[in-house]
Amino acid sequence: MSKILRVNMTNLTAKFEDVPEKYKLTGGRGLTSAITCAEVPPTCHPLGPNNKVTFASGIVTGTIAPTSGRISIGGKSPLTGTIKEANSGGMAGQKLARLGIKAIIVEGQPKEKGKFWLLKVDKDGAQLLPADEFVGKGLYETYPRFFAKFGKNVGIMGIGVAGEKLMSMAGVCVNDPQGRPSRYAGRGGMGAVMGSKGLKAIILDDTGGPGVPIANKEAFEAGRKKLIAALQEHAITKPGGALNTTGTATLINVINEAGALPTRNFSEGRFEGANKISGETINETCKKRGGVGMTGHSCSPGCIIKCSNVYPKPDGTELVSCQEYESVWSFGANCGIDSLDVTGELIRLSNDYGVDTIEAGVTIGVAMEAGLAKFGDGKKAIELMHEIGKGTPLGHILGNGGAITAGTFGVVRCPTVKGQGMPAYEPRAIKGIGIIYATSTMGADHTSGYTIAPEILGISGEVDKFKVEKSDLARNFLHTTAYFLDSSGHCLFISFAILDIASGLEGVVEECNGVLGTNWTVDDVVRMGRDIVKMERAFNEAAGFTKIDDRLPEFMKYEKLPPHNVVFDVPDKELDKVHNP
Amino acid sequence: MSKILRVNMTNLTAKFEDVPEKYKLTGGRGLTSAITCAEVPPTCHPLGPNNKVTFASGIVTGTIAPTSGRISIGGKSPLTGTIKEANSGGMAGQKLARLGIKAIIVEGQPKEKGKFWLLKVDKDGAQLLPADEFVGKGLYETYPRFFAKFGKNVGIMGIGVAGEKLMSMAGVCVNDPQGRPSRYAGRGGMGAVMGSKGLKAIILDDTGGPGVPIANKEAFEAGRKKLIAALQEHAITKPGGALNTTGTATLINVINEAGALPTRNFSEGRFEGANKISGETINETCKKRGGVGMTGHSCSPGCIIKCSNVYPKPDGTELVSCQEYESVWSFGANCGIDSLDVTGELIRLSNDYGVDTIEAGVTIGVAMEAGLAKFGDGKKAIELMHEIGKGTPLGHILGNGGAITAGTFGVVRCPTVKGQGMPAYEPRAIKGIGIIYATSTMGADHTSGYTIAPEILGISGEVDKFKVEKSDLARNFLHTTAYFLDSSGHCLFISFAILDIASGLEGVVEECNGVLGTNWTVDDVVRMGRDIVKMERAFNEAAGFTKIDDRLPEFMKYEKLPPHNVVFDVPDKELDKVHNP
Repeated sequence: MSKILRVNMTNLTAKFEDVPEKYKLTGGRGLTSAITCAEVPPTCHPLGPNNKVTFASGIVTGTIAPTSGRISIGGKSPLTGTIKEANSGGMAGQKLARLGIKAIIVEGQPKEKGKFWLLKVDKDGAQLLPADEFVGKGLYETYPRFFAKFGKNVGIMGIGVAGEKLMSMAGVCVNDPQGRPSRYAGRGGMGAVMGSKGLKAIILDDTGGPGVPIANKEAFEAGRKKLIAALQEHAITKPGGALNTTGTATLINVINEAGALPTRNFSEGRFEGANKISGETINETCKKRGGVGMTGHSCSPGCIIKCSNVYPKPDGTELVSCQEYESVWSFGANCGIDSLDVTGELIRLSNDYGVDTIEAGVTIGVAMEAGLAKFGDGKKAIELMHEIGKGTPLGHILGNGGAITAGTFGVVRCPTVKGQGMPAYEPRAIKGIGIIYATSTMGADHTSGYTIAPEILGISGEVDKFKVEKSDLARNFLHTTAYFLDSSGHCLFISFAILDIASGLEGVVEECNGVLGTNWTVDDVVRMGRDIVKMERAFNEAAGFTKIDDRLPEFMKYEKLPPHNVVFDVPDKELDKVHNP
Repeated sequence: MSKILRVNMTNLTAKFEDVPEKYKLTGGRGLTSAITCAEVPPTCHPLGPNNKVTFASGIVTGTIAPTSGRISIGGKSPLTGTIKEANSGGMAGQKLARLGIKAIIVEGQPKEKGKFWLLKVDKDGAQLLPADEFVGKGLYETYPRFFAKFGKNVGIMGIGVAGEKLMSMAGVCVNDPQGRPSRYAGRGGMGAVMGSKGLKAIILDDTGGPGVPIANKEAFEAGRKKLIAALQEHAITKPGGALNTTGTATLINVINEAGALPTRNFSEGRFEGANKISGETINETCKKRGGVGMTGHSCSPGCIIKCSNVYPKPDGTELVSCQEYESVWSFGANCGIDSLDVTGELIRLSNDYGVDTIEAGVTIGVAMEAGLAKFGDGKKAIELMHEIGKGTPLGHILGNGGAITAGTFGVVRCPTVKGQGMPAYEPRAIKGIGIIYATSTMGADHTSGYTIAPEILGISGEVDKFKVEKSDLARNFLHTTAYFLDSSGHCLFISFAILDIASGLEGVVEECNGVLGTNWTVDDVVRMGRDIVKMERAFNEAAGFTKIDDRLPEFMKYEKLPPHNVVFDVPDKELDKVHNP
């Protein structure tokens, strides 16, 4: 029987509890959000004693379902003030699930400020250990020391110096299959919440663990096969397909072509240096320089898409994993920087200090707008990242994200929603994703509802990117994502296949039915996704959010974005229809 | 006929307009809020092109009504995101009124960033002049240069470097009768709004101006006499009374005794060094050292209370005007500093850089909590103030106030409401003022409804300070203040006399009737105050504020305040009843 592990940082206790009935048939975001809604006062200070941080693997995570290694981390966000769930690949999700742990809930706060602890969990139980020796160091130094102490087989969810210093762009770092500190539940500052609880890392050793029980093996197998078939068939997800050969950064040229690649702090939609930071260039450079490159690297075991990469220095030795689309954009086009060596170094520093690459890049863009560096100045951008690591006053500003940085320097062109930096799609040029940014329960977040699929890639039918009547589209994406992807434990990138291939979608539901012994249909699962969003909205409403918060920043309504010279012209009424159709 | 002067900073035009009928019978806050509500989109960025800043004298300002020299400055606040009105004494209010100008509305934004202008207004008209030579300097250097250029008879409303740099604790500085840059419409960052419009200062020369017409001289005279009589009778306001002899800081020992003097960033309610920074000590020190001291200095002509002071250095030469209660507390007890020479220097620097002393002191308290200085370290506190003046990254953090500083450094004990720092009364120990902080339309603000009068001073009947059922009391104070004080143009400090002496209250109404030719009763004026608050609430609601924003910070609900060991225990329902009885 799987358990909930409750860790109280005030008393320094870790106790197992039975899983309440109401939590038995959910997982991932569905579970972290349910626990947050049940146990966290919506008006509490995110870094105070009354917030909690919950870790939960997806429903099928830990099984052999394809591309399903996600771990969800949720609580109240110090970046947005809303409810938050961020999920990550890497090694932790599967290990937590195989230990028979449905969720870890971390609550309370140590009396002693600046004191940190490790939570070690294995088949024999859980204990809190002093973390003093691991504090204040870069994660490229720290993670190998974790392995040296706890063995190579552990999954780690840890924070870097940014989380220790309570910076709200601090993510939670998960080791990749080779032990790199490179996979992140990055967004929303859950690393700072861990930091506020004095929790440096969770170390999971699933050796001898019970594994994930499967109630209906037949259903599970059938579903799994359907999903595998769909993933292997679809042009974007198949072996040798777009994601597999040029990675997520395959989108750089596509979105640039669409005039929707936010450039120089969202002042333009097309970057003259785009091709130099594209997926194609990443691939070519990897081939030229040698090393692991893009040859089938995956972020977690059991992924059959394998879109990750390991980017080499000029001499072929490793610089960083991974040059993702979002990171290459945020540090690249958004800062006017056209060098993959610079974006690679900035990603490496993000991994080392423990920050979200999207928020970090958006923030450096805002800092450049404020005059702290010139757009395109990679050397200065790297220096700004080091300020975060050093924890200087400037580092504290930047480490708290784009909105705080804009507020501190009086920058009006601040590309955030509910305090969270916008990802790599310009909402003025792609209206649907703008509606998602505005109406997501978690601030500007493309993973809440990836409407780029139909709006740019023609997936599940083509939709004109300039069309503004998209509340129905956005609502469908928000609801579907909440369950099919974020609760099931699958990666966002299965969405290309399951949107286009109906049997793939059914496969996900059947996998869940297999694990849980349920008989859900696709419609049931959409409904459950809707209920998750509804519950999260209720949390936010109780925290003081209104429809006025479901808006894009004002400047996007009066500043025309080149090259299409468009403003964000989706009427407020259309935005309000997303949650009140 | 009085006029409205509309200044467009995009086109650099200044044009006179007739006063619309709806604005004819109001002034001060009533007028700035009405114009803000009518012309400013509630969701606009406070520092963007769509915000406006409005300057309006009180209804009787510019006449010989006693203690009525206030000028209101309003718009959308960059500190709180709410509607904002801050008013000040000094020389500007009367001169604006005597020029026959009902309000100045400043709108738009120059295309060229960092370029500043002066608005010069005299009987012949208004013009915008380049301000380059006055930018980037301390106001103790700048104001004398204004007088050298425009004559000694001008009223000035200007911003310091903090406003130029768009810091949200930037106030608007008004010259005192001797030309000091020492009177402030301090709260809410209206100086940053001026800065965002490229307006360095407004220079008012009322020589030969038409003056304020009085419709019913008899009524005016009768009212004025009643108010004078009340002010001269009441123990707090009379010549030789508490305010006149020990200034506003007469309250330090009183509030400390009540266990309600916020100490070391609101962690205690009593300061062991209180007497060293009390009004009594200010008075003694002034007598001992010589100089102007507390011998009847007033902040604007026509004041008969004269609570101001000019504090000397040890050698008797001038250090600063004025050691007010709020400033002495914020830089003193709140920072654990027990030296008037240090608080004096910090006030002087606030005047010089152009910041609100309350917000600055609250911010330094938060910075001390964050470990940037030790509580009690005056030298370091002065260094922190210089950071603001220099505009370093740390200075930008601090210059944006307590909430941004707390956010940047992860400080949970953040004594702000709607982003504005709390003044010098601990809401856990005095519940009514806590209700005011929570439910004011402008964030934590004691001047919105000074319930200290009944709760501590026994004025208008004594009320137990620990009693929590005070929504009725708070509502009455909020409504009464909006009109009787903030719109009529009188100083907050007439409230002691008009609360205790009914004829004083009538006097204010009769003064207004005299100027406007109306026949209002006290009840009419209370109703109009209610309407002002209602209108401001509607603005805030349209800007996204809800009852959840009408709360004190969470830590005050679980941290017990010594010496009474009390939390803020006013139920949310009681808070909600203030505006929804």
